[in-house]
Formats: sequence, C-alpha cells, structure tokens
Amino acid sequence: MTARSLSFCCHINRQRTFKEKQIAHSKKHIAILGSTGSIGIQALEVISAHPEYFEVEVLTAGSNADLLIEQSKLFKPNTVVIKDSSQYQKVMDALDPMDIKVYTDGAVGDVVTMDSIDIVLTALVGYSGLLPTINAIKAGKNIALANKETLVVAGQLIMGLAEEKGVNIYPVDSEHSAIFQCLMGEWHNPIEKIVLTASGGPFRGQNREFLKFVTKSEALKHPNWDMGAKITIDSATLMNKGLEVIEATWLFGLRLDQIEVVVHPQSIIHSMVQFADGSIKAQMGLPDMKLPILFAMSYPNRIPTKFPRLDFANCAQLTFEKPDLKTFRNLALAFEASEKGGNMPCVLNAANEVAVSKFLHERIGFLEMSDVVETCLSKIPYIQTPCYQDYVETDKETRIKALEIIN
Amino acid sequence: MTARSLSFCCHINRQRTFKEKQIAHSKKHIAILGSTGSIGIQALEVISAHPEYFEVEVLTAGSNADLLIEQSKLFKPNTVVIKDSSQYQKVMDALDPMDIKVYTDGAVGDVVTMDSIDIVLTALVGYSGLLPTINAIKAGKNIALANKETLVVAGQLIMGLAEEKGVNIYPVDSEHSAIFQCLMGEWHNPIEKIVLTASGGPFRGQNREFLKFVTKSEALKHPNWDMGAKITIDSATLMNKGLEVIEATWLFGLRLDQIEVVVHPQSIIHSMVQFADGSIKAQMGLPDMKLPILFAMSYPNRIPTKFPRLDFANCAQLTFEKPDLKTFRNLALAFEASEKGGNMPCVLNAANEVAVSKFLHERIGFLEMSDVVETCLSKIPYIQTPCYQDYVETDKETRIKALEIIN
Repeated sequence: MTARSLSFCCHINRQRTFKEKQIAHSKKHIAILGSTGSIGIQALEVISAHPEYFEVEVLTAGSNADLLIEQSKLFKPNTVVIKDSSQYQKVMDALDPMDIKVYTDGAVGDVVTMDSIDIVLTALVGYSGLLPTINAIKAGKNIALANKETLVVAGQLIMGLAEEKGVNIYPVDSEHSAIFQCLMGEWHNPIEKIVLTASGGPFRGQNREFLKFVTKSEALKHPNWDMGAKITIDSATLMNKGLEVIEATWLFGLRLDQIEVVVHPQSIIHSMVQFADGSIKAQMGLPDMKLPILFAMSYPNRIPTKFPRLDFANCAQLTFEKPDLKTFRNLALAFEASEKGGNMPCVLNAANEVAVSKFLHERIGFLEMSDVVETCLSKIPYIQTPCYQDYVETDKETRIKALEIIN
Repeated sequence: MTARSLSFCCHINRQRTFKEKQIAHSKKHIAILGSTGSIGIQALEVISAHPEYFEVEVLTAGSNADLLIEQSKLFKPNTVVIKDSSQYQKVMDALDPMDIKVYTDGAVGDVVTMDSIDIVLTALVGYSGLLPTINAIKAGKNIALANKETLVVAGQLIMGLAEEKGVNIYPVDSEHSAIFQCLMGEWHNPIEKIVLTASGGPFRGQNREFLKFVTKSEALKHPNWDMGAKITIDSATLMNKGLEVIEATWLFGLRLDQIEVVVHPQSIIHSMVQFADGSIKAQMGLPDMKLPILFAMSYPNRIPTKFPRLDFANCAQLTFEKPDLKTFRNLALAFEASEKGGNMPCVLNAANEVAVSKFLHERIGFLEMSDVVETCLSKIPYIQTPCYQDYVETDKETRIKALEIIN
C-alpha cells in the first residue's frame, strides 16, 4: 500500500484525533532474558531478519554456555549473563576479548535496569521470571512478556507497579497478543468478554482411563505449536490455558466471568474479543510464535515479514467445542485459584512447576499432576493480599509440599 | 469493565500517544436517505433503542408515504422528503401540523446540506444515491454509506471530494464495516490484502444448468441475511460481492490484486484484513445489519446493545471455499470492470440495475442477467477519466442499451 492510497483510507487517517502516530523507525534496544530457550531463539531469528529495527543489548541464559557464546558472537550484545556460575569462566574467555561484559547468577535482576535498554523480553521459564520483571518495571522498561507465570504468581503486584511507573506490558503469548491486537484503537471501548482459544493439546477427546498411561514423549508432541518442554506439557494438561486465563485477568483488567475458553483444534484463530455492542474481533494466522514476538517488539508498527501466510480459500474448516473440565482438571483448578485470588494462583503455579518437572523425569503419571496441584491448593494457607515476600514464601512452601506429596 | 479495570489494560491507555480520545456522548444528528427501505427501517430501530445517542433530523422516502408518516410521528424529524410527488399532499397534510417541513422530488440533494446534520446515512438503492452523497460531502457531512453503488459508479470522484472536504466515510455494508473495524488503531500500518467473505447465496454449489431455471422467489431467499430485493438478487448472482470488491478498492485505497473473495457459507466472519507482518484480523458475529449500522453512526465508540450474541462453543464449524467464477460470471465481470476502470464500473452497475429489475419482473431468466451486463460492458464507449456528467451520460446510455438487449 502506497502513501497515496493510505491517504484515501476512509479519510480516517486525516483525522488527527483518531490517528495513531507512527513511531519513527529508530532502532529499539532489546534485552532478552532466556535467550537460549525456545522464545529467546525465535526472538533472535526475528531480530536477525530485521537488523534495521532492533539492536540486541543484553542476553541472559541459564546453563547453555555454548549457545549463548554463539548468539553473542552474532548479535554482539553489550552485556550477557550466564546463570550457571560453573559456566562463567568459559563464557568470559569467549566474550571478554570481544568487549562484551559477562556476569553470572544474581546479575539478571540488575542488568535489566541498564539505561540503554528500551524493551525487556522476559522469556524465562516459570517463577524465575518474577524478580527480573519487577526490577525492569521499576527501572521504567517496557516489557515484552513471554513469561506468563510472572502475572499468574503476582499479577496484582506487577500491574500495580507497571501502572505506577507508566510502563507498557506487551504480551508475547499468542492468545494474549491476539487480544492485544484486537484492542488496538479500541482501548476506550468496553470489553464484554474475551474468548481464549485452546488447541486442546495432543489428548483432546481422550478420557481419564487413557490419560492415566500416557508417556512423557506422547505428551511432548503438540499438534500445532513448537514450544519448550514445560509449556508443551502444560498444553497437554490444559494448565497452560488455565495460566493464560489468570494472565488475561491481569493484563486486560477483566473479571473471571468475562473470560471464556473455547477449544479450537486448528489453532488458526488465536483468540477473540467481544465488545459491548456484540461485535467480535479475532486475530488469526498460522501458528507461529515469531509473529507475536515481533509484534511485541515493534508495536504499534507492523514490520513486513516473509512468514508463511494462511490461505483461507484452502483452509478447510475451523471448529470449536467446549473444553472438557472433568477430564482436564487443571483448567478447572486454575479457575478456582483465580476465583479465590490472593496467593492461590502462586500456589497453583509452584505446585504445577514441581509436578511438570517430576512428570518430565517420569516420576509421576499424567493425571497425578492435577492431584499434586489440587492437594497443594487445599493445604497451603491462604493469604488475601500478599506482599512480595509472601509470594516468595508461598512459592517455597508449595514446592516443599508438592515434593512431600510426590515422595 | 469498570473504569478502574480499564486503567489496568496493559497500561497502554495511559500512553496518550496511542490512545484514541473517547468522543463525549453528545447526541449525533442523523439524516436517513431511504428511511422506508430495509437499512432505513433497521437504522430507526437502532436509533429508537438508543435515544440518548441519536436524534433524527431528516427522513427521505421514495413513495411509501404511510410508513414515512408513521416514522415521522415517532421520531419527529425537522424535515422529510417524499420523492413521489403524487404522495406529497398526503404527507404534507399529516406532518405539517406537527411543524415538520415536507418537500418532494429534487429536494433530497438539498436537505442533506442542512447545518443541523452531523451524519448522512445514505440508504438509497442503486445509482440514485450518487447526487445526494456528493452534495452531502460538499457540505462537509460525514457519510454512513449503505449505498455501495455510489462508490462503484463514481469512486474516484467521491473519494477525491471526501478527501478535499475532510469528510469521513463510514461503511455500513457488513463486509466493509468489518474491514473498517479491523483497521481501527492500525491506519498507519500497511495492508497486505483484505479477504471479503461471501455467503455464496442460495445457489452456492449449483451449476449453470440449474441456474437457468431458478425463479424470482427462489432467488429472493437468502440463507443468512435479511435485506432488500435488489441486494438479495445481487447476492444470489454474486454481483453484490463484485460491487463490494469495487467499493473496497476505493474505500480502503487498495489495488484489485489486494482483494480476495472467499466463500464462507455461515456468514460469521464478516471479512478480514491481512497486514504486512502476516497477521490477520477478522470481525465476526451473527449476521445482523443493525450492528454495522449502529457502528457507522457511533464510531469510534461502541454502544452497548442487546443484539443476540454468537456462542462460539456451540458454533459447529466455519468453512471456506473458492468462489465459482465460471458459474457465477457476475463476479468475474465486476473484477474485469474494476480492472478497466474509468466509466466501466458505472456501466456494470447500470446494466445490472436494469437486469435485476427485469428479473424481478420475471422478464428475463437468472443467467441472462450476466449476459446483459457483459454485452453492455463491451458496447458502451470507454472513458478513462470521467467527470460527473460523463457518469450521468454513461448511466443513461447503458440503461437504454440494456433495455434494447432485453427487448
């Protein structure tokens, strides 16, 4: 579309009141927390395809020193952090000669506050994303949030801080990115409800008898999305959708009864918003995390890509069904935890992290994961308005309780 | 959603740069051209459900004096026009005592310029919408455009005028309203293509042998939408979709190759936009013209309604297929006319208006409608850059030619 044709567009763009200002394409400086994970790797792919828009400022990794070194040689960040201190010297030896600063362990929480960073992409897995996100928000950095557990655990705290600091949180989860895209130009219009779509995972339509015996490798085969191990298991148990429901309540300021989960096995519609007039907007496309990652970093501008396009004329059909909450109890448990509020979503998350890890180590069966979560929710003391320290205690206590239940 | 929860919404609404200003809910003063037709009647239903937002300023009708009088007693407009001068006295007798000004015939082109009007809803059928729309734009009135023929016939002229006068054109057609809604907050982002969905009409999947013998009453049964006779026949021949393609090129400043037509028999997805990053946005809902009518009058605000909601969990499936251009030749002819440009879309429209009218009078068969259009497109002299008078001449000449062919 040329500038000329844009100027014809219903003439709306001539009305300055309604026009969103296009941000000049100055480079955005990105910090990627968790650069060697699935989201981190895809973010770097996106960045390397659009070097005119992005500059990598910081990379952090857990223990994959080799990949972190490789990435750093390519993207030349200012600073890297390798969490595993046993790998520190190796990374130091490789990158120090290139004038890249190297830190270890506790440094992730500090490097996110660097002046030169515009956006922090938090792609850490689970609870570990919480502290660096808090620090980044305190330092006034906009957040591209791929770590949904941060909002699940401490949504009230995070959103309160973000409001105080005037920081934007751009969702990276494909569902929340879809909602966010549908809300562009409509921030002033009341939301009636949102519809979070769920693929249903690899075991959609199965019963509990079947689920009792599914293996780790069966659970790791997601029909549509290519993701990390933790989130793939969460997708198979529908806990991922439960975490997304809780994330959405915070991100979009919604009541639980404004969120509907619909199973949509094709994963073409990534989620929908229904406004107060009854109109529904959906964001759609082939399942590819690179698109929401890119958009979280380029908002409000869309950067042209060569990602494969959806061909509607050859897209046979889109189907929808209700989720089976009796078979996939994790989703029901997430609704319950969100309803209770306080520290209960934190309990849900910690118990689930332990359970998934034990399932991945083949220590418990598929259905036992929900048992662990349910028991923890009933045993850990309720705190209505937790402070940061309460979350830390709740997380710790829950993990101990979950391990007790399993052993 | 409460004001408080809105303030949490990704914190985006705190960024004044990206925030669309909510228009204060001062009443909008509406002129409805064609108030006794299908769109006009539905517009008045919408207005009567939301008297706090809208005030009826002008109503115009063709010959249905009784309904115009009834509507006027209810909505108390400032001015009415009854085009059929034989009905003038009747309307005058009924409304003059109520202090409502009554005009006839040529007055439609004048009343649209009244100072008190904010938005002109042009719900006239066919070519007759052109002149009043031009006058309204010249008077600086925003247009809620339900008369697609206006843009088909004279898109270049209309959009040029609208740009000159800084006038907004809000589409009422459900497809164009869908595109428009998807573009909110994205006026600055390049469109890769739009996908106009088509129900396929009552004869989807049929062959030409079958179509040869379909009757007027069969063609008037649209599977999803409740509309006027002309547009219902146009939907059965797919000419409606062809006219919409041409309308979309002008409304959204698109090249013809940026517009794809996909048959979607359920009419749930009302149309889609694909942006340059590959992301697709769709607007969806139950087929109900009242929603796009309301939105064209309330933009950029959404007014809460009690329209029936779509239930996704019980929405069995959405399907898509390519349109059959060999059987439904009108769509191919519309693409051809748009490709040629100049006065050819005007020829297409005039020939089609005559053909549909003759089909509705059972003077020609279903397939002959395309024959009339095709012959006119090849016989009427081409004008590359028509002025207003050229459109008038082309329209007149084409109607004569079409009648010649039929008789």
